[in-house]
Amino acid sequence: MAADSAPLANLIDQFERMPGIGRKSAQRLAFYILNLPREASKKFADNIIEACEKIRRCSVCCDLTDREQCPVCSSPSRDRSVLCVVEDPRDVSAFERTGEYKGLYHVLHGAISPMNGVGPEDICLRELVERLGDDTVKEVIMATNPTVEGEATAVFISKLIKPLGVHVTRLAYGVPVGSDLEYADEVTLSRALEGRREI
Amino acid sequence: MAADSAPLANLIDQFERMPGIGRKSAQRLAFYILNLPREASKKFADNIIEACEKIRRCSVCCDLTDREQCPVCSSPSRDRSVLCVVEDPRDVSAFERTGEYKGLYHVLHGAISPMNGVGPEDICLRELVERLGDDTVKEVIMATNPTVEGEATAVFISKLIKPLGVHVTRLAYGVPVGSDLEYADEVTLSRALEGRREI
Repeated sequence: MAADSAPLANLIDQFERMPGIGRKSAQRLAFYILNLPREASKKFADNIIEACEKIRRCSVCCDLTDREQCPVCSSPSRDRSVLCVVEDPRDVSAFERTGEYKGLYHVLHGAISPMNGVGPEDICLRELVERLGDDTVKEVIMATNPTVEGEATAVFISKLIKPLGVHVTRLAYGVPVGSDLEYADEVTLSRALEGRREI
Repeated sequence: MAADSAPLANLIDQFERMPGIGRKSAQRLAFYILNLPREASKKFADNIIEACEKIRRCSVCCDLTDREQCPVCSSPSRDRSVLCVVEDPRDVSAFERTGEYKGLYHVLHGAISPMNGVGPEDICLRELVERLGDDTVKEVIMATNPTVEGEATAVFISKLIKPLGVHVTRLAYGVPVGSDLEYADEVTLSRALEGRREI
């Protein structure tokens, strides 16, 4: 492949900018696109444009959706007294896959991280506080990631919203189901011991 | 993220079909696209369409290019008596990066692989034989991959073109520079011994 073939080089560059994609993968992906039938590559390009045009944030929970309100927020069967606060839209998918959770969500789109220049005003926190304005929500489950940033965000938000009279809870820490204790790190093990329950 | 948001689900599906991209990576890539500024995502889509429309095979060597003849074939400074036969356009880039090779290329776009239903008529072999029609080319370097398919293809082609009066050579086998002998496989080591040279 001649490196100075501009359209191909551009396409490879585009892929290389994506997260987790190096030069070699970018080449592989670009060649995959080139080898697609013409209609399929057109469809790919159209999908990108369509998704970017139609997908926006739910006006209630800030999750991504193609409607004014996301299906969870607009469902009459969800428990409106519980709110699960997550960092990322993908976390909503993860909870929905459990089939256990019947409450609503709130997507922060990030975690507070001063190191990366992300402050409380850069995540969807104002929207969360607004939702707690009436007395519908009784419990807020902080389901940010169990990382330093996620923890800090959970603590920050809990301090902010507790005065509004809601219960604030945090996901349980412990050993993941199906894992091998031998490989569990010390912090996780200590937390699992700490949170032990009678059986 | 609501799983039934069609434009997003479509975009994730598109990425998931790409080589080496699983469900999680596909989600990550789709979200990356959604988070791009509107012009950037439009540009991405345009790049896909432009590359697919403009990139075609060089009429001489079958490498991918956006012109009638690729820059290597149309360069007056290349040695037209040597032809390096490779499986893939990316292999051309690899040789060009060495800066050592001054001859021309021929891209097969695959290797003969009866297991995968790829026969001699499915790769750019006819084009290669046509190029050997006049007496310009004196040597053909078989630079197909050192895999079973690449080997078989090299042998097949060499048998086919030797009667045309060209020298057919094969890349040297041996231990890769900078590698650790301890980890070299037996076949590579035997080939390296076999091909040893005086120093």
